[in-house]
Amino acid sequence: MSTKIEFDIDIQSYLYNKKSLIDNHLKKIFEESNDYKDPIELWDAVRYSLLDGGKRIRGILCLAAYESLLQENDPDLFGDCLTIACSIEIIHAMSLIHDDLPSMDNDDLRRGKPSCHKAFGEATAILAGDGMLSLAFELITEHTKKISETQKLEIISTLAKSFTKGLVPGQMLDLSLAGKSCDLKTIEKISRLKTAELIRASIICGSVIVLEDNPEKEKITKNLTDFGLKTGTAFQIIDDVLDKTSDTKTLGKTSHKDEKQKKLTYPLVIGIENSKNMARELIEEAKLKLKDIPIKVSLLSNLADYIINRIN
Amino acid sequence: MSTKIEFDIDIQSYLYNKKSLIDNHLKKIFEESNDYKDPIELWDAVRYSLLDGGKRIRGILCLAAYESLLQENDPDLFGDCLTIACSIEIIHAMSLIHDDLPSMDNDDLRRGKPSCHKAFGEATAILAGDGMLSLAFELITEHTKKISETQKLEIISTLAKSFTKGLVPGQMLDLSLAGKSCDLKTIEKISRLKTAELIRASIICGSVIVLEDNPEKEKITKNLTDFGLKTGTAFQIIDDVLDKTSDTKTLGKTSHKDEKQKKLTYPLVIGIENSKNMARELIEEAKLKLKDIPIKVSLLSNLADYIINRIN
Repeated sequence: MSTKIEFDIDIQSYLYNKKSLIDNHLKKIFEESNDYKDPIELWDAVRYSLLDGGKRIRGILCLAAYESLLQENDPDLFGDCLTIACSIEIIHAMSLIHDDLPSMDNDDLRRGKPSCHKAFGEATAILAGDGMLSLAFELITEHTKKISETQKLEIISTLAKSFTKGLVPGQMLDLSLAGKSCDLKTIEKISRLKTAELIRASIICGSVIVLEDNPEKEKITKNLTDFGLKTGTAFQIIDDVLDKTSDTKTLGKTSHKDEKQKKLTYPLVIGIENSKNMARELIEEAKLKLKDIPIKVSLLSNLADYIINRIN
Repeated sequence: MSTKIEFDIDIQSYLYNKKSLIDNHLKKIFEESNDYKDPIELWDAVRYSLLDGGKRIRGILCLAAYESLLQENDPDLFGDCLTIACSIEIIHAMSLIHDDLPSMDNDDLRRGKPSCHKAFGEATAILAGDGMLSLAFELITEHTKKISETQKLEIISTLAKSFTKGLVPGQMLDLSLAGKSCDLKTIEKISRLKTAELIRASIICGSVIVLEDNPEKEKITKNLTDFGLKTGTAFQIIDDVLDKTSDTKTLGKTSHKDEKQKKLTYPLVIGIENSKNMARELIEEAKLKLKDIPIKVSLLSNLADYIINRIN
């Protein structure tokens, strides 16, 4: 019992601390430069969608992968990892802005407030998302200090691919298959593309920073990839379950919207209880992947546990 | 007279040859990989908007800058330059897809056929544009063979900045100032951001490939930047003039649309004749910038002349 309580406190304060670091780093990026003032409505829309709200799970997983593999602390490398975590959160936030648009999911609420196009209009929301996507890549080239050029390119490539070949086709499938009949294989494909790919990429980006000269890089990357895809899929399953079982206030976004939009979800295909069991199994399998690589297991394990126990 | 005829033939065949190379390279990218088949409607929308049509001026300027500075030919470096020219054309094409959307310019016609959202629907058009933007960066990291990591990062940074701090705020201003009163300074700002920045970036990207160890890199880059911004502005002025004086069939996009959308244009602010004169002056000033740097002047000069003499 006491172990459980300690574990809860640790992971909650870890999440809180790392979220604060990411939030502050994002704010710093937008405050330090004059580039984000003109035209003001564009950058206000970006700040509105990016700077307050969001669990920062993807950015935190990037930092956690880095810290789990680290031999000794290096403030400059940590700063670079924080920049990359911010780039990841920028990509995630822009994907939400575009997903919420009237021609897509048509959602009025995001992170507890009106979605970007409701607050700023559709054109501004589209442009804000576009600008954020290129900004994410710009930050990796411009706002990192110590990581090598090889590492920068590997991170850019990892994130670009997870977007081009993950999020975008995932959202396309999610939209085009809405209302159709569906088997488990199809919903697994959608959730891998739409959610798990960016979660995997976030973990891999954190690992790239510390693995440059590691002779076991290939094996560690393979296992972290498996860990990321399984954890990411479990994350989406729980998202689907929460959409069905929680309320709008707790979620900070419209609840029961999957049903309204006739979206394909795990509860729809296999039921709520089977979905929960599947998520639990995936998290157990994911944690096993950490066992035979040289990594501090507990941090990523605890984050994986958090992912299936979260309430929003 | 004979000089003039020769010049015309040369630049026309140069444009034709380079456009074919870019078109074929883009086709090869989409044919060689299985990544662009699923979901088919997404990648069909990308191919539809990207693969046929387009003057490829930005990609050609990238190749021309490279060739103008080249000491000796290198097929691998040329291949890399071609990939970068394709990335530039992908960024340009995705910006057109998003500009044409109903919530933006609401244009039904592009490159002589229905615009992407008219042919594939709004959601697919937004997602196709999103995927193209990340694909452009992905290609630079993955589809280049010989350029150094430093060069790749410089090119990614140049293109990302021209998008985040050029095209996106430019389109935002263009939309938000439509119908308002306007002075020359404002229209100059819009055309610099919306058009000249990417044209400048295209030329700079071509030059980056050959200038790595050049002791005069700073000066050459400065002059090519001036050349690019002036040529890019002239390009936009002529675009505005053609919109007002040409017809839809010749343009391949809806003519007189600036007027219908109450867009701010050079002819609106200073009149057609003054606009033409201003474009001519900018091109002359641009060409002067090539005179005192070690560069084969004629190619970029002739392209600049083409830009103000073009009919579509």
